[in-house]
Amino acid sequence: MKTVITIGEILLRLSPKEGRLLSSAEELSAVFGGSEANVAVALSGFGERAVHLSALPKNPMGQAAENALRKYGVDTSRIVRTEGRMGLYFCEGGASVRAGRVVYDRARSAFAEAPASLYPLPAALEGATHLHLSGITPALGKKAEELTRLALLEAKERGLTTSLDLNFRRDLWSESKAKACFLSLLPEVDILIASSDGLNILGLENAGTDLSACARAAEILHKKFHLRAVALTVRESVSASFNRLAGVYFDGEAHISPFYAVDILDRVGGGDAFAAALLHAFLNGFSGDEAVSFAAAANAYKHTVFGDAMCVSAEEILSAARGETRIRR
Amino acid sequence: MKTVITIGEILLRLSPKEGRLLSSAEELSAVFGGSEANVAVALSGFGERAVHLSALPKNPMGQAAENALRKYGVDTSRIVRTEGRMGLYFCEGGASVRAGRVVYDRARSAFAEAPASLYPLPAALEGATHLHLSGITPALGKKAEELTRLALLEAKERGLTTSLDLNFRRDLWSESKAKACFLSLLPEVDILIASSDGLNILGLENAGTDLSACARAAEILHKKFHLRAVALTVRESVSASFNRLAGVYFDGEAHISPFYAVDILDRVGGGDAFAAALLHAFLNGFSGDEAVSFAAAANAYKHTVFGDAMCVSAEEILSAARGETRIRR
Amino acid sequence: MKTVITIGEILLRLSPKEGRLLSSAEELSAVFGGSEANVAVALSGFGERAVHLSALPKNPMGQAAENALRKYGVDTSRIVRTEGRMGLYFCEGGASVRAGRVVYDRARSAFAEAPASLYPLPAALEGATHLHLSGITPALGKKAEELTRLALLEAKERGLTTSLDLNFRRDLWSESKAKACFLSLLPEVDILIASSDGLNILGLENAGTDLSACARAAEILHKKFHLRAVALTVRESVSASFNRLAGVYFDGEAHISPFYAVDILDRVGGGDAFAAALLHAFLNGFSGDEAVSFAAAANAYKHTVFGDAMCVSAEEILSAARGETRIRR
Amino acid sequence: MKTVITIGEILLRLSPKEGRLLSSAEELSAVFGGSEANVAVALSGFGERAVHLSALPKNPMGQAAENALRKYGVDTSRIVRTEGRMGLYFCEGGASVRAGRVVYDRARSAFAEAPASLYPLPAALEGATHLHLSGITPALGKKAEELTRLALLEAKERGLTTSLDLNFRRDLWSESKAKACFLSLLPEVDILIASSDGLNILGLENAGTDLSACARAAEILHKKFHLRAVALTVRESVSASFNRLAGVYFDGEAHISPFYAVDILDRVGGGDAFAAALLHAFLNGFSGDEAVSFAAAANAYKHTVFGDAMCVSAEEILSAARGETRIRR
Amino acid sequence: MKTVITIGEILLRLSPKEGRLLSSAEELSAVFGGSEANVAVALSGFGERAVHLSALPKNPMGQAAENALRKYGVDTSRIVRTEGRMGLYFCEGGASVRAGRVVYDRARSAFAEAPASLYPLPAALEGATHLHLSGITPALGKKAEELTRLALLEAKERGLTTSLDLNFRRDLWSESKAKACFLSLLPEVDILIASSDGLNILGLENAGTDLSACARAAEILHKKFHLRAVALTVRESVSASFNRLAGVYFDGEAHISPFYAVDILDRVGGGDAFAAALLHAFLNGFSGDEAVSFAAAANAYKHTVFGDAMCVSAEEILSAARGETRIRR
Amino acid sequence: MKTVITIGEILLRLSPKEGRLLSSAEELSAVFGGSEANVAVALSGFGERAVHLSALPKNPMGQAAENALRKYGVDTSRIVRTEGRMGLYFCEGGASVRAGRVVYDRARSAFAEAPASLYPLPAALEGATHLHLSGITPALGKKAEELTRLALLEAKERGLTTSLDLNFRRDLWSESKAKACFLSLLPEVDILIASSDGLNILGLENAGTDLSACARAAEILHKKFHLRAVALTVRESVSASFNRLAGVYFDGEAHISPFYAVDILDRVGGGDAFAAALLHAFLNGFSGDEAVSFAAAANAYKHTVFGDAMCVSAEEILSAARGETRIRR
Repeated sequence: MKTVITIGEILLRLSPKEGRLLSSAEELSAVFGGSEANVAVALSGFGERAVHLSALPKNPMGQAAENALRKYGVDTSRIVRTEGRMGLYFCEGGASVRAGRVVYDRARSAFAEAPASLYPLPAALEGATHLHLSGITPALGKKAEELTRLALLEAKERGLTTSLDLNFRRDLWSESKAKACFLSLLPEVDILIASSDGLNILGLENAGTDLSACARAAEILHKKFHLRAVALTVRESVSASFNRLAGVYFDGEAHISPFYAVDILDRVGGGDAFAAALLHAFLNGFSGDEAVSFAAAANAYKHTVFGDAMCVSAEEILSAARGETRIRR
Repeated sequence: MKTVITIGEILLRLSPKEGRLLSSAEELSAVFGGSEANVAVALSGFGERAVHLSALPKNPMGQAAENALRKYGVDTSRIVRTEGRMGLYFCEGGASVRAGRVVYDRARSAFAEAPASLYPLPAALEGATHLHLSGITPALGKKAEELTRLALLEAKERGLTTSLDLNFRRDLWSESKAKACFLSLLPEVDILIASSDGLNILGLENAGTDLSACARAAEILHKKFHLRAVALTVRESVSASFNRLAGVYFDGEAHISPFYAVDILDRVGGGDAFAAALLHAFLNGFSGDEAVSFAAAANAYKHTVFGDAMCVSAEEILSAARGETRIRR
Repeated sequence: MKTVITIGEILLRLSPKEGRLLSSAEELSAVFGGSEANVAVALSGFGERAVHLSALPKNPMGQAAENALRKYGVDTSRIVRTEGRMGLYFCEGGASVRAGRVVYDRARSAFAEAPASLYPLPAALEGATHLHLSGITPALGKKAEELTRLALLEAKERGLTTSLDLNFRRDLWSESKAKACFLSLLPEVDILIASSDGLNILGLENAGTDLSACARAAEILHKKFHLRAVALTVRESVSASFNRLAGVYFDGEAHISPFYAVDILDRVGGGDAFAAALLHAFLNGFSGDEAVSFAAAANAYKHTVFGDAMCVSAEEILSAARGETRIRR
Repeated sequence: MKTVITIGEILLRLSPKEGRLLSSAEELSAVFGGSEANVAVALSGFGERAVHLSALPKNPMGQAAENALRKYGVDTSRIVRTEGRMGLYFCEGGASVRAGRVVYDRARSAFAEAPASLYPLPAALEGATHLHLSGITPALGKKAEELTRLALLEAKERGLTTSLDLNFRRDLWSESKAKACFLSLLPEVDILIASSDGLNILGLENAGTDLSACARAAEILHKKFHLRAVALTVRESVSASFNRLAGVYFDGEAHISPFYAVDILDRVGGGDAFAAALLHAFLNGFSGDEAVSFAAAANAYKHTVFGDAMCVSAEEILSAARGETRIRR
Repeated sequence: MKTVITIGEILLRLSPKEGRLLSSAEELSAVFGGSEANVAVALSGFGERAVHLSALPKNPMGQAAENALRKYGVDTSRIVRTEGRMGLYFCEGGASVRAGRVVYDRARSAFAEAPASLYPLPAALEGATHLHLSGITPALGKKAEELTRLALLEAKERGLTTSLDLNFRRDLWSESKAKACFLSLLPEVDILIASSDGLNILGLENAGTDLSACARAAEILHKKFHLRAVALTVRESVSASFNRLAGVYFDGEAHISPFYAVDILDRVGGGDAFAAALLHAFLNGFSGDEAVSFAAAANAYKHTVFGDAMCVSAEEILSAARGETRIRR
Repeated sequence: MKTVITIGEILLRLSPKEGRLLSSAEELSAVFGGSEANVAVALSGFGERAVHLSALPKNPMGQAAENALRKYGVDTSRIVRTEGRMGLYFCEGGASVRAGRVVYDRARSAFAEAPASLYPLPAALEGATHLHLSGITPALGKKAEELTRLALLEAKERGLTTSLDLNFRRDLWSESKAKACFLSLLPEVDILIASSDGLNILGLENAGTDLSACARAAEILHKKFHLRAVALTVRESVSASFNRLAGVYFDGEAHISPFYAVDILDRVGGGDAFAAALLHAFLNGFSGDEAVSFAAAANAYKHTVFGDAMCVSAEEILSAARGETRIRR
């Protein structure tokens, strides 16, 4: 059991039932997520000790968010509670020819407004093995960007390994800002995670679903940014209900997972499951081949579980990776 | 924004949850629909002004039906409220090898019993651009047939364009009666809409999923009945959960849409979405190719939305038509 | 049928099921409300033409809010759609010894940020009989306060009657600011509506549940502010599940309603139902005694209906006012 | 275990969730009931063999109705299945000051249209001890009235005891028609059941909640119509949420139950629970005092159970009659 | 209408909603099932008289189980009610790459603890045509094994035909115990039902999805155990959401069904639907080809219906077997 | 923040919706509870560090139970996971004249079967301030009784204060066994908690709702068993929907709370809320008067919250204790 620190905003997700549209729904499910928190939950399921650092409002919704993480064993004792609002988003699941849709309402949230100085960074990182961040946090504004930067520096100073999932979001910031930020962060990053069709943010061509091209791109990134490892998620979006998912991992040599076909039940958080699985593999000495298949299978598995975050054991992912789909009695 | 008048019965649809049978359900969802009302709702979504003419009972269920249309911006001020009952139907969604099932209970409804003289036809048509009708209305009895006929004549007199969706329903009337009625109505019709496997009601062979045969049939109808345009929906029913949908449009020359594959969430109202999209395209000067693809995509899109009626923007249909199925953030 | 204009923010209300707390709920019902919008919906139920003026975000949630009003026949054609967020609040219903709780998240909403110049005030007021406002709107900031002021002036200029429901909310602004604002608005107000325990905002002692004291207070306000009428809601809060409600009306002489005992199902919007009923009574020439009983019964009735807004006919309220509680077949 | 035959229409009841109105509901619960079927279900719970005779449509809804009775052990083997529609009603539960509301849609149902000759009356009555009927059946039309009459005659011929619950429904027939019919049926009736405020249909003054007046009325009916027993339900309707219920029984001497106070969860079918309990008491030799308290408690008990029909053991009713309301572990 | 006796445990199944995991669910659906009870329910749907023999606890859950069978017309009058607990299981539906999961909690249930002598075997078998058993019952312990044996002997003595569905469950007993038991029972069995990949329990190689191999295996079993007929279910598990199903039947010659592709909604009870359909075919003189296609289609059909047990008419299965998947109006 | 250890079984509670009976429910809510675990959850809400010791099965249901406690901040790291089953119970909420009902199915659960030696008692008690136990644990069998005894001894040895809530359950053991056990445990107990009508288990007369008699009884117990404090819950059960609750506390002198009237939403766990509140008061130096009112109000508050356990702040209870039932904005 390793201790992994994740840092990021926790969002309330409000989504209508299957096949209902946001514009007419009268009942919404309420779950909590956020890229880095999802990674924490998944890591907890895999048996790691996950500590999530965030800022939440001092109101019942902030408490609900904390409860949601605690439920899955994530250590929330480092979360700060401030005046401010709960970031949230509305999410309409897609189906077949109809694309899913996300409406963000996260501006000026408790997390976005909290100064970096508010967080007990040294205490939180004390005794930890790894720090995981995503590109969403610096996209939320100056304060969150500073938090990202400070955390990375503090972590490297203390000898932790670090990972960054780019998670470039065009609705949060411009490509040029994102690029500049990522380039300034990468020197402190050990493991870079990105999607194969989001590579141009780092100056490469997108590699799409061509796994060899993905492997080449990962190798280039590995060298260019002196990374310990690069992991790419690969998604073939056949329809909003059916995708094929794979992964590529480069840690000196290239490792390619099989494609996993999934009928999509809830696609949000798939990349976070990939990241968590990859970190679990990395921290526990999986071979590169094992790591990438485990991560790609985790991504696929998440697509079958409702909610942003997924908390299942590594054994269940491994079983899925082996293609065992018969009912277990 | 054009003003389109639709006329037809509004039905309460009662349906059990996915996978539950009518014979054992203890909870039913309650939505309102009806072929022509569905067209009105979809047109409202596309930005047209839709005015629906109907008769509803003077009781809370009639009010509920009116509320359901108002919610989507349909003008219900021309609806008459009478003593009488709410027409309704029970609908069990199909799945895979199990066909869906509809049990109608619409006989002697407020609409079926209302004499044509009850409706404010001239006032309703005043200022309108187009009148849309379906073959279900005349199938409901003498009074509704007279309403159909009067509305068509009045519309033509006032210079509106008109459309008729055949919607032949074997459970409502005989083939011979339907044929006689349709033949008598067609002289006043500008746009004829039908399904490719329901053409024998007009004396042609059904064209099934053979798109060239469909195009030939549309051309024949176009000539024979001196129509401005003919549109055919094409459905390949692979299973009760999976269909492939296309459309053919003939407006002097033939236009053929691609096939759209859909995992079915709610197939009722697909043809009405097709009709509404086609009318929107017609009224707004889409090219024939654009029109038929837009209409076929709307049909597919409707299969992914719960309820009889669908209210989405034209942009969303166009995006689906272009095959954009990734989540929109 | 009179035309009444209401102006105010529409909020999304998210609330857990009965007996569930916000801090642990995983399913939330989604309804739309807002003091003035609730008045519009109730007036529509009573048969008036209600036009609601507001600003809503250009996204599916803004559309959902508009749909929610349209469903009940409110004219939403004057609503402006802007970039911006949907104001919302979380609401935990109380029960017995446990008080209900509201967590607002409405700061910087589309409505709060919209400048007064954005609204088509002259067009909206054209042909209207009455303008209704509440003290919540000026509490939302300078822009909304200006909108309130402009609307009142414009309305008086055009000869409309006007009403203001104080609705003082301590969480939105200070007592002194509210007082100053109210005093500046009252010269243009014909009908003042307030709660009997919120009178100190106007410099009087709160009258609580003492109906004679309420009548005296109403008389004082009537004279002091040269009003056509003053209406006070009276609430005895026996527990969070059981209240006794009454009203006092002064239009030159005092009118006092009976107390209506209610087992509370959803208490939000009770005061708005009171206001709407009072306006309906005022606009349709009810006697003072009829008016106040009708309004108090509407308040009680609303406590038995789920949601912020209630859309029922005047006959139903009158039947409740007469104490008819047997099942109607 | 006695065999009791009940005859009457089975209706589908559609009702919105607590606090939701029919005019806006999007989800309806679906239960089956009908006065006589409710009696059959309750008798089955009390341990009798209940055989229900009815006509149901040959479609999934008719099957659902049959399943609903079978679930509670009612023998449905004598039910005939015909072409025709399912009778149904919409039911909005009341609350506090808001009266409940029922919208019937039962005209021309399979039952109302079935000729008396269709039913296997002799076979159904063979071996039975008692026949129970209600005044709703003859109110449904000539055919159902004939069925009532034939069943009564056939039952008396075979030596069964008989009971009639007047259940006068003003929405189904006129007072004069009902009176004439009841007077013609009473000679074959052994036990008359009525509500204390529905006595004027038999030419008496309503006795309301005055238990002595009820006892006197019951005695008068007993003598006038040569009955074996008369049972009256007494309801004080404090609000739509809170009633006080009692019963009076005259079998040569008067027996009066205590009043049972009930917070109402579902008031439909209370009278049927009363009737069933009274018949169970009658058929099993309860004393008059025991009988009337058991019946009044069953009425109260039903008000706490969702659905038209209630299937619980006699022990549970007896426990409630004794005022045992602590949790049973 | 033949009378078929089924014997076996009835279990409460608790399962979370689609996509929710047992470890986080807060709402569970409650249905009742059990291999043999499922066969009884399906046979009742096909028009046979099904009598189910079991032991249930004397508490509300035992009553609920009985109600669940009665609802579908199964004769439960032979069920004994004892002190003891309700056997139950938790069931998490699988999806795509995620296998479904069953957690049993059936040890020491009322059924497992009831001695064979408790059951009214002679009375239950009196007048019956066929006895159906499954290999789950003897796996539950000595008492249940004895019940199985006694029932088989008693049935053969009375001239009933008999069937045994092996249903080998590795979690209930060892392979060697199961094999010994099955071998001792087979001399009294007329029809053997098994899955094509569970044949090694009888000493054969598993035949998987190779239909010719299945036919050979069935022939071998037919000869070796002097059976009247052997039926094998064949499942190709493409994913947890998509299977292809077929059947093989040997009654002197081999009969092979087509493969039916199914999108899985609820896979539990598919084999029981197969068994019931096969028995219905056998008892009503279907040809071997008809029998096996009917049985395989019933298996597929069950996969589309929620719950362990399915109650539909034979016509619906035949329609599915013919590939009719269009909506039936 | 004090550390409190609680020890006891965690049960899955399955309950139908309001007004539905266990014998017919098709949907059950799933929550986790257990007297001592409920105390832990409430203490966590009040700001204490609560550590719960228990044994849970190594399966998804055991995980679900652990998740349920973690969600509310209870430290579950001392829980042991064993082979074995999840204890559970079915719970039908009462209403008005209908008593609630509990059907236990907890025999041979993982907790009941776990030997005392399995638990890390010394480690768990290390650093703790207080140990809380209930009389349910020793009632579950020899092993659990030994655990209770060992924990008490170990706690006293380490200088912790201890409390015991008698919670006598007639369905688990006999009065004589319980009495003997309680008498043997009391010497190690500091705070005794009991219900005023369960005192005869300790040889006193039940004191019912007579608060002076309760005070006298508490004083007698205080002296007789050399306790630091005695707390009694007092319940007047007006109906299954309405109770009046109070408390009496004796810590050298008598303290009596007011009666709190509650409309009951979920009465399970009220006594546990009382115990937790009392412990919080005791550990934080509340005065005796404050303590008993806080505890009685917590009991009442719990009756308004769904689920066995309640997690709210002390401020909310204090507000309820002050009778503040108006909506908090």
